[in-house]
Formats: sequence, C-alpha cells, structure tokens
Amino acid sequence: MELSTIYECVQADLDLVKDNLRSISKVDFPWLAEQLGYVVRSGGKRIRPVLTLLSGKFYNYNLKYLLPMAAAVELMHTATLVHDDAIDKSAVRRGNPTINKLWGEETSVLLGDYLFARAGVFVSDTQNPRVIKLFSQTLATITSGELSQLLSAFNPEQTRQEYFNRISGKTASLFSLATESGAILSEAPEKSVKTLKEYGYNLGIAFQIVDDILDFTGNEEKLGKPIGSDLAQGTITLPAILVLERYPTDNPIKMLFANKDKEKNLKLAIEMARSSSITQDCYGIASEYRDKACHCLKLLPENISRQALTALADYVINRKK
Amino acid sequence: MELSTIYECVQADLDLVKDNLRSISKVDFPWLAEQLGYVVRSGGKRIRPVLTLLSGKFYNYNLKYLLPMAAAVELMHTATLVHDDAIDKSAVRRGNPTINKLWGEETSVLLGDYLFARAGVFVSDTQNPRVIKLFSQTLATITSGELSQLLSAFNPEQTRQEYFNRISGKTASLFSLATESGAILSEAPEKSVKTLKEYGYNLGIAFQIVDDILDFTGNEEKLGKPIGSDLAQGTITLPAILVLERYPTDNPIKMLFANKDKEKNLKLAIEMARSSSITQDCYGIASEYRDKACHCLKLLPENISRQALTALADYVINRKK
Repeated sequence: MELSTIYECVQADLDLVKDNLRSISKVDFPWLAEQLGYVVRSGGKRIRPVLTLLSGKFYNYNLKYLLPMAAAVELMHTATLVHDDAIDKSAVRRGNPTINKLWGEETSVLLGDYLFARAGVFVSDTQNPRVIKLFSQTLATITSGELSQLLSAFNPEQTRQEYFNRISGKTASLFSLATESGAILSEAPEKSVKTLKEYGYNLGIAFQIVDDILDFTGNEEKLGKPIGSDLAQGTITLPAILVLERYPTDNPIKMLFANKDKEKNLKLAIEMARSSSITQDCYGIASEYRDKACHCLKLLPENISRQALTALADYVINRKK
Repeated sequence: MELSTIYECVQADLDLVKDNLRSISKVDFPWLAEQLGYVVRSGGKRIRPVLTLLSGKFYNYNLKYLLPMAAAVELMHTATLVHDDAIDKSAVRRGNPTINKLWGEETSVLLGDYLFARAGVFVSDTQNPRVIKLFSQTLATITSGELSQLLSAFNPEQTRQEYFNRISGKTASLFSLATESGAILSEAPEKSVKTLKEYGYNLGIAFQIVDDILDFTGNEEKLGKPIGSDLAQGTITLPAILVLERYPTDNPIKMLFANKDKEKNLKLAIEMARSSSITQDCYGIASEYRDKACHCLKLLPENISRQALTALADYVINRKK
C-alpha cells in the first residue's frame, strides 16, 4: 500500500503538523530563517508524527495536544539527523546537500541545538508533565545509542545483542515515544498506552533493520544517499554482522576496517550480502518485529487507525526508500 | 566579598544541586559514566544555580521544585559550553583539557546533546509548564545568539548594538531564566517575577562584558584558558569594538582578521586595550548594568537573599576569573 493511502485518515491533520513545522522558520534573522526553512522543507516520510496522530485516534483525539506533540517528535528526529550528518561528515541526505555541506559543521551543531530547543517548546505546549519527561528521557536514550555507535565504529567484533541495543536506543525509542505520547495525550487507558508503546518499539526495530538492509541493497537515487554509507563510516549493522559471521576468514569488512583496499572491500562486502541469503535472513528478522508490532494492535479497538497502523507495519518492511 | 561568603545562605542547598548533577553520571555504560563524570566534576562558579536558589528565597522556598530547576540551568549551561568548545576547537577550559580535546568533536556533539536531554529531564521535574516552556525558549535564544556569533566571526564591521544583541542572547537570557524560574517556582507575585527576571538579565550582561574584558586583561592561569581566545576565534567583543572605534587606521584587529601577522597583531590589539582607557570604559559600561540589576533588587523584600544578590552583582564586576 502507498504511504499516501495509509496516511489518508490523518492527512489533513498531518498538513497542520507540517504548517507548525514550517512556522519555526519565521524568525527575525534572515540567515536563520533561510537555514531553518531549508531544514523543515526537506521533508522525509513523516512516519513519526503520523504515528503520534494515529495512536491518538483510539480514544480522545484532541488536536490541541496531539499536533504540538507530533511536531515535537518530528523536530527531535530532524535535529538528530542534522547532528548525525555533521558527525559523519555526510554530504547528501534525501537527495539534497546536508546542512554541514552547505554551511559547515559548526553551524550544524548549533542549528541542531536550535531544533532541539524548538522541539522542546512544542512538547511544552502539550502541558503534560509525563509526556514532557518522556520526551527528554527519549532524547537521552537516543543520544546514548548514538554515542555507543560512535564508540564502536570500525570495530568488527560486535554481537547481535550490541546491535539490537544500539538500534533500540537510536531508533525504536523515538518510534515508541511517538506512539506512547499519542496514547497518553488521548487519555488512553494504561493498558492501551503500554500496547501502543510496544507497537512503536517493535515497528522502530523493524524500520531500522530495513534501513540497514537498504544500505546494502537499495537504489542510490531512491535512497537519496550513497549505498554502503554505514560500512564506510565504520558502522556495523545486521547485514554486516551476518557477513562477518558467515565469512570468518579473509573477511572484506575486517580488511575495510583495517584500512586495506577500502573501496574494493566495501564493494565486496556489499556483494556478499546481496548474493547470499543474508539480506533475506535480515528481512526475516525484521518481519518478526513487524509481526510483534501487529500482534500488539490486536489488543486495541478495531478502527480506521488500527488498519492504518497495520498497513504501516507492512510498508516498513516493503519500502524501497 | 568572596563567593563562598555570598553563597553562604544557600550553600547547603547548592551541595544538594551538586549531588543531583553528579547523579547524572550514574549510567549503565562505563565509558559514558566516565565522560559525564568528567563533565560534571569540572565545576566552575555555579552562579546560575545559585541565582535560582537565591531568587526562590523571597517567597515559598520549595526545594522540591527549586533543586531540579537549579540543576537544569547549570546543566544547560554545561551543555552549551561542551558544544562551544567543539565548535571553537578549544583545547582548555577551566584549566582542564576540553571534552573535544580528550574524546574528539564528534563525542562532544553527542555528549552535549545528552546533557541537554538530562537538563530537560530535570526541568520536567518542576512540573511547571510555564517554566518548562521558558527553559526551551531560552535554549532557542541562546543558540540563535551563538549562531549569530558564528556568522559574524572575523567581521570587523560590527556595532555595539550587534554585540549587545548577541550577549543578550547567549548569556543574559540564561541568567534571567535562572532568576525568573526561581521566582515562578516559589510562587512570587508577577511583579516580583518580572523584577527578578530583569535583575538576572542585567547581571548577565554585566557578567559577559567582564568576561570579555578578562579575555584582554586577565591572568591566563586564573582564567584557565589562553588570553585573547575571543579575538583568535574571530569573536568581536566590547573591548575589541572600542579598539576598532579608536584606532580606525592600521588597526591590528582588521589586520588579524585579514590573516596578516596573526600573532603580532593579536598581541598588539590586547596591548592597545590594556594601555588605554578602553578596559576602564568597558568596566564603566558593565557597572551601569550592575547598577540596573541592583536597582531592581530594591523593589524586593529586604532579606538575606537580597543581600547576597547585591553582593553577587559586585562580585561579577570585581572578579578576576
């Protein structure tokens, strides 16, 4: 199913979220307005704010609180991307030059901070102390996940468990914030809050595994960034772990991380994942998390939002970008 | 008056704030615990949390809310320093190696983000939506002040107004958050909230001007960083503006910014400020803001806290580090 079809029942409200996001570039300094405009225009799939809206649709769908929350999760995501790109010195994101490429890494650091701040202003508009605390705790979790990734860069000795811990921190935590906060702000019963949180968590893990697969198998033009970026930056993902497990001797990833024939070994590692059952196996693992996510949904009232969340779980697996 | 004497009436509570700050390094990852421990140990004057505590002492001094707020303002300050040092590639802060020097700029970016997050958790413990919103708005203000500083680096054509706008954003806004939040959380009447906010703002401006003077006249050992850092990083401060105004031709700052004989011209610029009335004039301007701050205090009930805030305003002018 197309994303536009899945989003249909919240599309009008998502447009309001986008208006909120665009509004942050209305500032007094023309240079800042330009940079912010660039950041919020570049878009993306907007999955996280949609998760907040859809999760808010089971009980009291109150846009007064759900709209700023949806804007806050998207803006937090944007801010982490701006900092990630600066740290990785990435040149392209979603087919466009990154902030660090255009204005330098120093600007990226401060612009990311500014986005965190504006995300904080949005979340404070929910006036809900529980959600506000969750928001900050999630940022701490995301950041420690990213710090752990940075620390383990170029280390080929990583376990699956370490990988899952990292993606749980850097990705699944924000997905579960998106769904849990939607539930809390719509005054869902505690059981449903927990269920939607778990849905978001499992969806986030599935999403990140597929992201990591696409970095091996994807189409550069569709993805809007070069293939093999993770390995080139020293990040070990699930497909890489499987390549390392299956080919313990003369492994191209070990050679790459030891700075030997980097280009050749990067290509070789990608080829090994593509031509074996590795990508299929990774999809199998991602699908298990998709299934867990969908299983959670069965505990919720049947409605249009539940259908959309189910379709979204399938989209996450089947997407090509 | 010594800082320890000024702090006396809140010293026991400041120790609790320090405990709170130290507690953030109790995390599961040993490497993160080490980095956080290093950050929160390095200390500083702790003026901002003291401002929150003292400002909370005029009405309902409720530590349940004032302690996390004091920790939040200090941690936000710490986070901005970590990012500043990474951006400026500074090697030394408070006599110790900076985070970026020890662990690299990438770690600094993420560690700063982590500190912002934990600051956000502290502020959410105040359970006060108004203060929480103020906190995020202040971070946005600080960051746009710093972005503006970055944008205007190495540009000798800057007015006093531009300088005041910048320090108002990057320094005075946090001082006024510290005092205003203390007032709000102690249920001060709105008039007193406004008064304490203004006190903090004016104190912050005076503090930053003196900081900028000390970068010209200070003692390297006492300051814990090299003299002339601002100019070396292309930052125009009040003493520099006065040097530019008074010596329009053959100006060493213009030469320095044009990359000519950098070391010689940096020394020359510092010498020009030191040997003329420029530093004295800057102290005159800083003292005007000190006076404005003290004038505000007269509108508040007379108590031990008012005496401490008055003494603090004098300390800010007379300090040597």
